[in-house]
Amino acid sequence: MSDYKAFRVELTDKIAHVEINRPEKINAMNADFWTEIIDIFRWIDETDEVRVVVLSGAGKHFSSGIDLMLLASVGTQLGKDVGRNAQTLRRKILELQASFNAVDNCSKPVLAAIQGYCLGGAIDLISACDMRYATPDAQFSIKEIDIGMAADVGTLQRLPRIIGDGMMRELAFTGRTIDGEEARAIGLVNRTYADRDALLEGVFALAREIAAKSPVAVRGTKEMIRYMRDHRVDDGLEYIATWNAAMLQSADLRVAMAAHMNKQKPEFAD
Amino acid sequence: MSDYKAFRVELTDKIAHVEINRPEKINAMNADFWTEIIDIFRWIDETDEVRVVVLSGAGKHFSSGIDLMLLASVGTQLGKDVGRNAQTLRRKILELQASFNAVDNCSKPVLAAIQGYCLGGAIDLISACDMRYATPDAQFSIKEIDIGMAADVGTLQRLPRIIGDGMMRELAFTGRTIDGEEARAIGLVNRTYADRDALLEGVFALAREIAAKSPVAVRGTKEMIRYMRDHRVDDGLEYIATWNAAMLQSADLRVAMAAHMNKQKPEFAD
Amino acid sequence: MSDYKAFRVELTDKIAHVEINRPEKINAMNADFWTEIIDIFRWIDETDEVRVVVLSGAGKHFSSGIDLMLLASVGTQLGKDVGRNAQTLRRKILELQASFNAVDNCSKPVLAAIQGYCLGGAIDLISACDMRYATPDAQFSIKEIDIGMAADVGTLQRLPRIIGDGMMRELAFTGRTIDGEEARAIGLVNRTYADRDALLEGVFALAREIAAKSPVAVRGTKEMIRYMRDHRVDDGLEYIATWNAAMLQSADLRVAMAAHMNKQKPEFAD
Amino acid sequence: MSDYKAFRVELTDKIAHVEINRPEKINAMNADFWTEIIDIFRWIDETDEVRVVVLSGAGKHFSSGIDLMLLASVGTQLGKDVGRNAQTLRRKILELQASFNAVDNCSKPVLAAIQGYCLGGAIDLISACDMRYATPDAQFSIKEIDIGMAADVGTLQRLPRIIGDGMMRELAFTGRTIDGEEARAIGLVNRTYADRDALLEGVFALAREIAAKSPVAVRGTKEMIRYMRDHRVDDGLEYIATWNAAMLQSADLRVAMAAHMNKQKPEFAD
Amino acid sequence: MSDYKAFRVELTDKIAHVEINRPEKINAMNADFWTEIIDIFRWIDETDEVRVVVLSGAGKHFSSGIDLMLLASVGTQLGKDVGRNAQTLRRKILELQASFNAVDNCSKPVLAAIQGYCLGGAIDLISACDMRYATPDAQFSIKEIDIGMAADVGTLQRLPRIIGDGMMRELAFTGRTIDGEEARAIGLVNRTYADRDALLEGVFALAREIAAKSPVAVRGTKEMIRYMRDHRVDDGLEYIATWNAAMLQSADLRVAMAAHMNKQKPEFAD
Amino acid sequence: MSDYKAFRVELTDKIAHVEINRPEKINAMNADFWTEIIDIFRWIDETDEVRVVVLSGAGKHFSSGIDLMLLASVGTQLGKDVGRNAQTLRRKILELQASFNAVDNCSKPVLAAIQGYCLGGAIDLISACDMRYATPDAQFSIKEIDIGMAADVGTLQRLPRIIGDGMMRELAFTGRTIDGEEARAIGLVNRTYADRDALLEGVFALAREIAAKSPVAVRGTKEMIRYMRDHRVDDGLEYIATWNAAMLQSADLRVAMAAHMNKQKPEFAD
Repeated sequence: MSDYKAFRVELTDKIAHVEINRPEKINAMNADFWTEIIDIFRWIDETDEVRVVVLSGAGKHFSSGIDLMLLASVGTQLGKDVGRNAQTLRRKILELQASFNAVDNCSKPVLAAIQGYCLGGAIDLISACDMRYATPDAQFSIKEIDIGMAADVGTLQRLPRIIGDGMMRELAFTGRTIDGEEARAIGLVNRTYADRDALLEGVFALAREIAAKSPVAVRGTKEMIRYMRDHRVDDGLEYIATWNAAMLQSADLRVAMAAHMNKQKPEFAD
Repeated sequence: MSDYKAFRVELTDKIAHVEINRPEKINAMNADFWTEIIDIFRWIDETDEVRVVVLSGAGKHFSSGIDLMLLASVGTQLGKDVGRNAQTLRRKILELQASFNAVDNCSKPVLAAIQGYCLGGAIDLISACDMRYATPDAQFSIKEIDIGMAADVGTLQRLPRIIGDGMMRELAFTGRTIDGEEARAIGLVNRTYADRDALLEGVFALAREIAAKSPVAVRGTKEMIRYMRDHRVDDGLEYIATWNAAMLQSADLRVAMAAHMNKQKPEFAD
Repeated sequence: MSDYKAFRVELTDKIAHVEINRPEKINAMNADFWTEIIDIFRWIDETDEVRVVVLSGAGKHFSSGIDLMLLASVGTQLGKDVGRNAQTLRRKILELQASFNAVDNCSKPVLAAIQGYCLGGAIDLISACDMRYATPDAQFSIKEIDIGMAADVGTLQRLPRIIGDGMMRELAFTGRTIDGEEARAIGLVNRTYADRDALLEGVFALAREIAAKSPVAVRGTKEMIRYMRDHRVDDGLEYIATWNAAMLQSADLRVAMAAHMNKQKPEFAD
Repeated sequence: MSDYKAFRVELTDKIAHVEINRPEKINAMNADFWTEIIDIFRWIDETDEVRVVVLSGAGKHFSSGIDLMLLASVGTQLGKDVGRNAQTLRRKILELQASFNAVDNCSKPVLAAIQGYCLGGAIDLISACDMRYATPDAQFSIKEIDIGMAADVGTLQRLPRIIGDGMMRELAFTGRTIDGEEARAIGLVNRTYADRDALLEGVFALAREIAAKSPVAVRGTKEMIRYMRDHRVDDGLEYIATWNAAMLQSADLRVAMAAHMNKQKPEFAD
Repeated sequence: MSDYKAFRVELTDKIAHVEINRPEKINAMNADFWTEIIDIFRWIDETDEVRVVVLSGAGKHFSSGIDLMLLASVGTQLGKDVGRNAQTLRRKILELQASFNAVDNCSKPVLAAIQGYCLGGAIDLISACDMRYATPDAQFSIKEIDIGMAADVGTLQRLPRIIGDGMMRELAFTGRTIDGEEARAIGLVNRTYADRDALLEGVFALAREIAAKSPVAVRGTKEMIRYMRDHRVDDGLEYIATWNAAMLQSADLRVAMAAHMNKQKPEFAD
Repeated sequence: MSDYKAFRVELTDKIAHVEINRPEKINAMNADFWTEIIDIFRWIDETDEVRVVVLSGAGKHFSSGIDLMLLASVGTQLGKDVGRNAQTLRRKILELQASFNAVDNCSKPVLAAIQGYCLGGAIDLISACDMRYATPDAQFSIKEIDIGMAADVGTLQRLPRIIGDGMMRELAFTGRTIDGEEARAIGLVNRTYADRDALLEGVFALAREIAAKSPVAVRGTKEMIRYMRDHRVDDGLEYIATWNAAMLQSADLRVAMAAHMNKQKPEFAD
């Protein structure tokens, strides 16, 4: 892997560990962050050896969200014409969105491990992950409302599918902070672990379990759930039938079946 | 505000309090109710001073639903030709739906405070609100099944997004009554308060909090969540980018930022 | 009813009891199963006397999912050309899906009663039912991942609408087994009952309650909720208005109203 | 009918003739125009006696589009805050759109008869009609591009379904003027007539023919074609099945059948 | 092939010729017609040897549409309750639609050859075919309007995609008869041939040409065009990528490539 | 501009001329072609000075489509496992599609000028352009069917919206070659010009005309038409209202208005 400024990336036992690595800045999302994350997830997508991703934040906090300096710098690029400014801003927002779309569209499962602050843009980020796990004292807040804007890099678009419409609106209108336990109760995170060490241990255990499954099956499964977020049941059924028409001819099915019959652990090619 | 027969409407501190005001009739929804609610929400939409809405019912109950006299009177308008009757009924139903669409489409957040009965049409109504809060002894029932019809002013259309598909079907098929606590457990209401006084106090506190946020940001947030109920994630991302292309040029962003830096409370224009 | 090999079907008091009846094979879904279930639900759809369906499994377990012999036999039908194999497999998957679509599209409510194993294809099946009830020691697992494939007869398509996106992915990627209590906590089942006897008693009580309602209203309600899983709120409102334009001219409304006025139990025609 | 300032409205032989009536201003669409058209089409919708609508322009031209004075007056309502201006403009555009939505959603067929200029907003208007007929020397132009804006009251949204994507873009990007013959060749109008008299005669003959058909059948037909512009074929089939479930019980079917058998002209109730 | 009462079916040189065979009744669609057509197209779908279908009518006319006796017999099945009648009618219409859906969903191209009358239900039928060819004196009319109903077995749903919105509405509202030449001019048929003999000769020549192509490629092409009628461009691109992921591994590609290089005629397996 | 191997790119008078520049290979689309086109259109998108694009082919032909050597080289990357091959192929197809998506998503209008061969992949390419113009002796063919595959980089997805469903299927199933005149008759090209010189002169004249319009208005217009290809009319109306909420505050509107009043030619900023 190449060197990153905002991240630390490691690949061990088929698991890519992507850690936001600016702990002295509460892992605020600066310009490096937004471009590097695209490169990292392109590499993950193209590297057959990577089967699962764990996303975490170095230090006491997951992330305080977008770096306010970055936001301020966008303002300086604006001119006098409202229409042209609007085109500039629209393009800029689409660019930022592309960074988290890279996480959402990644063909391998992404597990987020969250402790401490998870604010504003950090909620947008974890909404683009597959699953979320936290410590009880994690603090979640849709902070955008407090800087006078509607969240525009994914929270308002992806979170309603995860936590339901009613509580979604309360959190988005008030910016209220919830802790890890409440996050679990409303379905934002799947489980809490006592502290950061237990959290990482627990999430890596899950990741290892997924990494041992057939990669062909895991990617198909992710693609189908992703697809269902936006499509009809009948379209989804037709899509999986077309998908599996090829994938059921893969060796993984035979490997899994044979292992099942012999009560052994299957070994799948990358 | 003009005088209403089925409602009492007050505007204090940027919060419009809309109270169904026929306590002697358990706040049953009569002809006045259905037309006045459209006027009220048009006024709310057009009045910049209103930033949040609290919807409640006067007396011991929120509402017993549609007035059966009104339903009976529709029957008297029918003639002999099934086809023409169908056109009359279809138009009538679309008219009733328009009353609650006015709540759903309102550009400001609507918080429902529910005590006592919340039956039939009242469920249709609260399904069109942004958030719902209740007392523990509130009683919710999709009563339509018991008068031999499928609910047709919004319950079956909006509630599945709020409480999920499985319990939705049980409640709709059986008309089973659930209390405030069960309503909270399945996500129908966000929180319960000990009694009606605590309920109103709690909901108004929330409303005040939202009223203090940037109105530009609150409306954008509501529009985006409303949009996501029916659209794809990629469409939603494109829509917020286009929306914020204008809104990020608003003064509210600067006001909020400045207040944030100075750790002061921001003051936003209406 | 005709004789079935994989099922036992009874009609009592307007309730069709459909029981998977291969307890010695843990109710594994063999070739008979997949074709008979279509016939059974066509009969249910066409038989006005049937108002509700209870679906259960004979013996200690609900079902272990698709019979692995059946899966193996599909493999033997494949030839050398990958393209033609893909067409064969695609057609075969669409056929299997059609069996559970018959359950999903059935115009009467289907209640699943689940004890013991509910694995793989059995999850696909219960995802196509209206409501699910279980014993605390039931065991649910999206087993497909362990035989190297993405679930393709409905689980990945229907379950996200029932249990939400976050936990859905964990269960689908890991194949983790959850018991009845956890299933209830995440909304997969509506309620648990102490043991199989209590379960069937409870589910039949619910079924009787639904069977006593207006069949015109129950079918309309089911059609609307089914429709909303895949459509927009505004489309849903237009659809129910068109539907009820005819149905509100039914006698059931008058029967229900009259009974309501006289505080009697209504009797509806089939 | 009440008196209108921008229109002349007549009802003869079940046909409503709606004529834009500001010939001295080339029928430019002023403030009166935009509000009165809503009232007129509401009246048409609610008046059973009206079965078809003919829309035309008094004098030498159909219409030169939106009155530039009106456009200028909107500008004066804007303040300093870009965000609040954007909300004002968005609301204003939605209001203007509502005027032509009233034409599009009208339950009776609307036939446009076009001579002379048909520019800018006038293209938006005729795109919302059911059918269009013209004189050979009519002049059509998507004029909005020449005042520096994208057409926002319906042309860009509805016209592609009528004339196809390729020529649509050329006309929208260039604002090129086409005459009646070219309009017919690309499907924008169904037929041309030698001059204004022949045009009105021809369109009224068509209108009379439609007025003689079953109103139940005509409205159902219009609703279905309108629905198909935005929905899937399978949704459309389900919708017409639900619609006709009521409408086929209408007397019109029997009247039409009987007339058909006896080779007589049927007479339908309004 | 089994014997059919309403059809004559022949398979020669990979082309199935399906001929409506009740010339003495102007090929009116009776009860046999509607059930046999489903069987015929299921057989076509399952028989690898069939690569293309030609659909024609025996005698002087293609078909006069639905048999009025059949329509009348439906009326006799209705009872007194409007609601239950509506359910009966809805089910009946869905059944009739299923007959033409079988044509639309057929995995092989269907070419319609039309001479003489093509009225009412016959328009519904040819709208479900892939391509249409006619004699100049063929007569097309959306006859349903004249029997007091909106067409409900496919014309209003499928035809707008073929002939565009503007002329569609004129033909549907007036029931106006157009001949083969006008049908060609508006895109309803692709080409006209001088008389019935030339028509069949021309259509069979086309069919032979298609039958000589790779069946894997032809089916993929049909599936994609069918899919695009109802889906977004981005969904369509993702779908063909998934489809071709398997199909490009087929031998047909190599066979076609090799033949292309050697300038020979390729021979594809069924 | 940087140097390209497969293209020649020039920017003159706000018009980017993109010419496929491998005339000795009939402009076949090789590996360079597919990657360079993305860079070129990214540059076009980001360069405010570019307002319109003309796409043409050097020499006697527009393009013979994908280079068969490239196709062959993909085959060599495949291994033994059908499932993994399918994933490789799917990714490869999505990559090729991305090249033409770059044309489709380009925010400036793209005009294709076509002479000679326009085969296979070249049809996919021109389907992604805004408008198409040709010489009478141009030759169009959906060639993919003849190499045993369904077209998978855009033809089957985009062309039906341009030429209608009926002729689309004939051309796709048969691969029949049509010339410029027939292409014009079915709406594939907007106009023909006598020869290549006249063609380029005509297309550049059109391009200059568009380049003189307000760039803010042109981009908005393109975005809206692109959006309508895949969205509902009501969504489109909401989208343009949101878009114009910002754009109508642009200076271009005032510039255009002032020029219009003074009957002068407006000058817009890039």
